[in-house]
Formats: sequence, structure tokens, C-alpha cells
Amino acid sequence: MLNRQYTGMLQEKDIIFEIFQYATKRAEEIGEENVFDFSLGNPSVPAPDLVNRTIIEKVKNTDALSLHGYSPSFGIMEAREKIAASLNRRFHTNYRASNIFMTMGAAGALAHALRAVTNPGDEIITFAPCFSEYKPYTAGAGLHLTIIPADTDTFQINFNAFIKRLNPKVSAILINSPNNPSGIVYSTETILRLTRILQKKSEEFGHPIYLISDEPYRDIIFEGVDSPYIAGYYPDTLTCYSFSKSLSLPGERIGYLAVNPDCNQADQIIEICPQISRTIGQNGAASLMQRVIADTCDDTSDLRVYETNKKILYDALISFGYECVEPGGTFYMFPRSPEPDSYAFCEKARKKDLMLVPGDIFGCPGHFRIAYCVPTVRVKKALPIFKELIEER
Amino acid sequence: MLNRQYTGMLQEKDIIFEIFQYATKRAEEIGEENVFDFSLGNPSVPAPDLVNRTIIEKVKNTDALSLHGYSPSFGIMEAREKIAASLNRRFHTNYRASNIFMTMGAAGALAHALRAVTNPGDEIITFAPCFSEYKPYTAGAGLHLTIIPADTDTFQINFNAFIKRLNPKVSAILINSPNNPSGIVYSTETILRLTRILQKKSEEFGHPIYLISDEPYRDIIFEGVDSPYIAGYYPDTLTCYSFSKSLSLPGERIGYLAVNPDCNQADQIIEICPQISRTIGQNGAASLMQRVIADTCDDTSDLRVYETNKKILYDALISFGYECVEPGGTFYMFPRSPEPDSYAFCEKARKKDLMLVPGDIFGCPGHFRIAYCVPTVRVKKALPIFKELIEER
Repeated sequence: MLNRQYTGMLQEKDIIFEIFQYATKRAEEIGEENVFDFSLGNPSVPAPDLVNRTIIEKVKNTDALSLHGYSPSFGIMEAREKIAASLNRRFHTNYRASNIFMTMGAAGALAHALRAVTNPGDEIITFAPCFSEYKPYTAGAGLHLTIIPADTDTFQINFNAFIKRLNPKVSAILINSPNNPSGIVYSTETILRLTRILQKKSEEFGHPIYLISDEPYRDIIFEGVDSPYIAGYYPDTLTCYSFSKSLSLPGERIGYLAVNPDCNQADQIIEICPQISRTIGQNGAASLMQRVIADTCDDTSDLRVYETNKKILYDALISFGYECVEPGGTFYMFPRSPEPDSYAFCEKARKKDLMLVPGDIFGCPGHFRIAYCVPTVRVKKALPIFKELIEER
Repeated sequence: MLNRQYTGMLQEKDIIFEIFQYATKRAEEIGEENVFDFSLGNPSVPAPDLVNRTIIEKVKNTDALSLHGYSPSFGIMEAREKIAASLNRRFHTNYRASNIFMTMGAAGALAHALRAVTNPGDEIITFAPCFSEYKPYTAGAGLHLTIIPADTDTFQINFNAFIKRLNPKVSAILINSPNNPSGIVYSTETILRLTRILQKKSEEFGHPIYLISDEPYRDIIFEGVDSPYIAGYYPDTLTCYSFSKSLSLPGERIGYLAVNPDCNQADQIIEICPQISRTIGQNGAASLMQRVIADTCDDTSDLRVYETNKKILYDALISFGYECVEPGGTFYMFPRSPEPDSYAFCEKARKKDLMLVPGDIFGCPGHFRIAYCVPTVRVKKALPIFKELIEER
């Protein structure tokens, strides 16, 4: 019999993918320039030239046997060293290469982090609005995921609700800042308050509460925004990173898990990661890309377009009468839906060839997500549709 | 608390890796040319030039956004089409692109296949000698793995032992031909006998018993060896493939799962694969390599060296008095240990700087594995050591 868990998952429609499929079909019918597909978080700026130059250079100048050969189970040492050095230089951290485990993107990093510091049946807490994939990620590790309702005024953490739910069965807290879908960056104040609670409760419960920090949008932070490096505030932090957004390489599936050197059992967490890999069939990120990352991890794509788009879109939405917490980073925005049923609102938008995602799937009904990782001209052309939608209410 | 399952796995020493580490250390001390490292199955011939030329061509001529962008969750259509066509041309099969799911190597393919056609608690049967990683692979899917003892005279299937253990709790049979560690290829007779049993028992049990065929060595088959394409003999076959050996790309983690179009619920098996990916954090093989595979999947490295090495080594071992079933493919050989304790034998070999792996970890004590994916000169230079070892007995 086919697997009941996975066949069951087919019943829950993947709304983002459905919208994206519809957008693709519409683009064929009426032309791509007439479809406003704000559904998917796919970078709209290419990888920096340095990435492609480095790929060619590696292929030309590295012996093919070692270039494409098995990489060590923790990852290629040069990549781990360069990443640790880059983090230390930028965030005043003390990572050593041995604290870095190379993974297949942030999803791979989370798959390892979630399994390393928990046991099946444990509880894990995250905060709405949150990435919809956290449900399958935690389910796959046998964990109970508790989603704390959003503080919809700020999209910082709803501490009152959080404290009520924190209990000794909680092994880890999963956070995502800059946040998908809200675009919000947790402030220093938020991080200090969160980590003080975790320190106190870890002592009270007699075991560390690990902080798993999912940071694929770390390098898309807008000017002047307070953006603490989270591992700098809490020793028991596991940072999950992907180069998908910073280097526009989402398809290459390359990222890392960084374990704070001051973390409880830091060395053992890294040491068990290859054991986790063995059970989920995920034996290392692609070797060519690991070598490329070693030479490019300090670079980024030209990410300025996202802030340009944010400004145009945010200012316009506010002027039209939308309520929205201003994003501090990412390429997402999460306004309040003009009508309580965000599915109905997104359906109306879809009929005008504007593709938006209902907030319900991020644990936050009554809102909708705009992924503005599209050409700026497309953002501008979509503004009248947003205006119509709120006026027709 | 850290995960008990994974910390527990640290206690079971990874013998192959330990031997490999020792070999690396010795190479530093006495020179690489004086260490005979037959421990690891790392290809010794480089990827064909076509692979590197194709990488450069793709990087130069493909728009960077689509080259490195998210690939569809089933894989890039062109790669799936080309792989299906290549299989159909070579093996007279009827695969459509929709039967192919792109994965991170054979390990990724197995992770999906094993989860798709089973439910946690089910039993899965494999045959000794078998790849040591089958234990963590099946444990990760929540399965009970039964290893049928080897038929050490032929390393074909021990059918008497198999039939006794086959029962209605068995969801799938996992086979690996050409085989790691024995190098044996299952004959048409073996496959016919196996598939007849499975057909009969599937009817008797009232559910299909799927055949998961792990075939990373499919393209290393020696001249004149009977090597049936297994999916051609049994509709309910899921074939797991990796380009790691055929194209010498083990580090790039690229492979596929091919579901026989005549398989029970063939479409649904493929359909649930992306759901499985979501729970194990394995969202697609690297996009650049998928595109490269589309253009190179009919090519192979120059694999002839493995047959050359096999012939030299096999003939010499037999002349020295070793007992060994002659390999039909791969780059492994699995002789009987001259003394019953193969750990002790491998330890003696290690003292002579010859690195071998005890058969116990492949479920077959009293044997040892030789991975002869090394330069031919190294094979020749190692022969006197093999001679000494059997003479000193």
C-alpha cells in the first residue's frame, strides 16, 4: 500500500503552486507582460557574474576527479572555512570551520537542525506568520509544531501567547527573520526579550531550548533597519542559511547549518549531522557548487531592486488605503486583506490576473502575501489593479 | 536533549571511513604511491569531457535566472525526457518523462522509493551481501529491514532462505545488481525466479510487493555478462539510479527514480515523491547538473579500466589460492577471507598498507571487499601483498 502520510498530503492543495500554474497558463493566453504573478519567491535578479565565472574557472582548472568526487560528509573544508570567516567578519561571531555543516539549501539545513536537537514526539514552537513548509519539515522529524498566533500590529513576536505555550516538552524554537511572508525583521528588542525568556526557561526546565534560526533572507535587509545577528544573542542557536536569495541560486540547493561554537554540545550536534544525512538520503550538497561558494560567499546579486520594489508598492498600497506593516527586508509584503476572507480577496485579484497568496497558509488569516521579486516595471503596472481591488470593496 | 537515534549511530563505528582516514594519514607519512587504498568506491576515471564542456556551455548560453532558478518539484522536464528516451532506447522499456523523478543521487532516489511504497512499521527484504547504508536508509523510513543470508557460492539470491521469510508484512524487496560489495550481476534466471515468486506472493497476499532496484553500477558491466534490465521483468519495479559511477560524478549528487509505467499506481507513486521531499528537506537535485545530465545521460566515462583491473586482480587472487566469485560488473570484488575472522584479516592487510573492508558490514562475514577503482598500476603493485597475506596464513 502506498504511504498514507504522503498520499494524505496530496489532498491538501498546494495553493501557491496552483496559483503559479494558473499564472503560467494565463501568460500563454494573454502574454507574460499582462500577468502579475506575485505568487512565488523566486529571485528576479540573476546570480552575480562572479558565480558563473567561478563555475567556469573551477571546471577548467580543477582536476575532474576531485572537482566532481565525493565530498566529505561535513562538506568541503574550504567552503566551511570561507563561510566561517565571512560570518565572523560580518557579524563579529567566532565560528570555526568545524561549526559549519554544508547542506542542500536551507531546507536541508533545517532537516538536520530539527532532527539534531529534538527527539520524535517533542514539541517545537514557531510564530505566525510563518513559512508554510514548516509543517512538513517538522512532521518529517516526528515533531509537534505549535504555531503562536501573530501580533498583527507589528509582526514581531506575540510574547503573551508564546509564554503561555512554552513548556518542558519544547526542545526548540524555530524563527524566521527576515520573515517570509511578512518581510519583517525581528528587532534587537524582540531578540533580547525572546532570548531572555529562553535562557530563563532553559534553566527552569533543566535542558537547553535551542533556537533554530532560518535565515535565507539574511542578506536582503533594507536601509536603516535594525537587524541583529541572532546567534550573537543566544549561545544555543543553530543558524540555517541558503545562498538561494543572496546569490540568486535557488535551484542549486546550496546552504549550510552554522552551530554557534558556544552552543550546548556544539561539537556533537555537528558530529551527528552526517548520521542524519544517512537516514534521509541527503549525502552532501553538490560538490561543484560547494567549491564555487567557497569563492563567492562574500558576494551577493544586485539585491537593490527588492528595496526599490518595496518602496513603490508599499507607498502605493498605503495611499490606496491598505493596512500593511512595512517590510524591513526580503521580497515579501503581507498586507491586511480588505475583506476578512483572504481567499475570496485573492480570488478577486486572480480574476484581474494579479496573483496573490492568502495568509491562511502562513498561519495568519485575513492577510495576503505579495512576492515582489519581479521586474519593477511589473510592480508599477500592477498598482492600478491593487487600487481597483480596494475601491470595489 | 540531542537525538538519541543519531547519537546512538555515532557509537557504531563507520569502519569504511576509519580505514579511509587511516589510509589518508599513511599517505602523508609514506607517500600516496605506497598506500593501497582499496577501501572506498570513489571512481578512478574522470568525468567525460562532454560533462565539463556542457557545464561551460550551459553557464555561457543559458539565462542565469533560469539556469540557477528553482526547478519543478519533479525535476527539469528536459532531463526527465532525455532519461526516459535513453532508457527506452537502451533497454526497450516504455518510460515516459512523467515516470522519471529527478533526485540527489541514488541515495535520494532510495529515500523516495522506500517511503513511497511502504508505511512505517512495514518490513522490507534485501539480500546479503548488501550495501551497508541500507540499514540507515530503511531505518529513516521507519521500516524493518530483513537481510537474507548470502548464497556464498554464487552471490545470486539464496531463494530457500528468502521464501521462508517472505510474509504479508513485506511491502518491498530491495535489490542491488550489479552488486556492492560482490560485483555480481543477477542473471536472467535469478531475476525470472525472483519475479515469479513476487508475482505469486503479491496475488496470495492481496497487495503488490514492490521491487526497488538500486542500480548505480548499471553501466559497469563486463563483457559477455548476462545483465537483464530488471524493470523489464517485473511491472512493480522502482529503479533507483545515480550518475555517480557512469559519469564519475559522485559528488554532484545527481540521479533519478524511474517508476515502471506498468507499475501498480505508477502515477501516484511519482505524484507523492515531491511530498516526500518536503518532509526530508530534499527539494530537487541541483538545477545546473539536471540540465547537464539532459545533454550527457547517454555518455559514460571511460569505464574500461575497471574490467582491466578486475581481470588482473581476479586472475592473480585465484592463482594465489583465494576463493572468489568472479565479478560481472562494478569495481568491487568480494573474496572469501583466508581466515574466518575477516576483521583480523583486514587488520593484517592494513599493517601492510593494503586497505580492505571486512565483509561483516555487508551482512556477510568471512569475506572482504576490494574496491579496485584505483589506477591499474596500483592494482599490480598490490598483488605481492595479497600473495604474502594468504601465504602467511
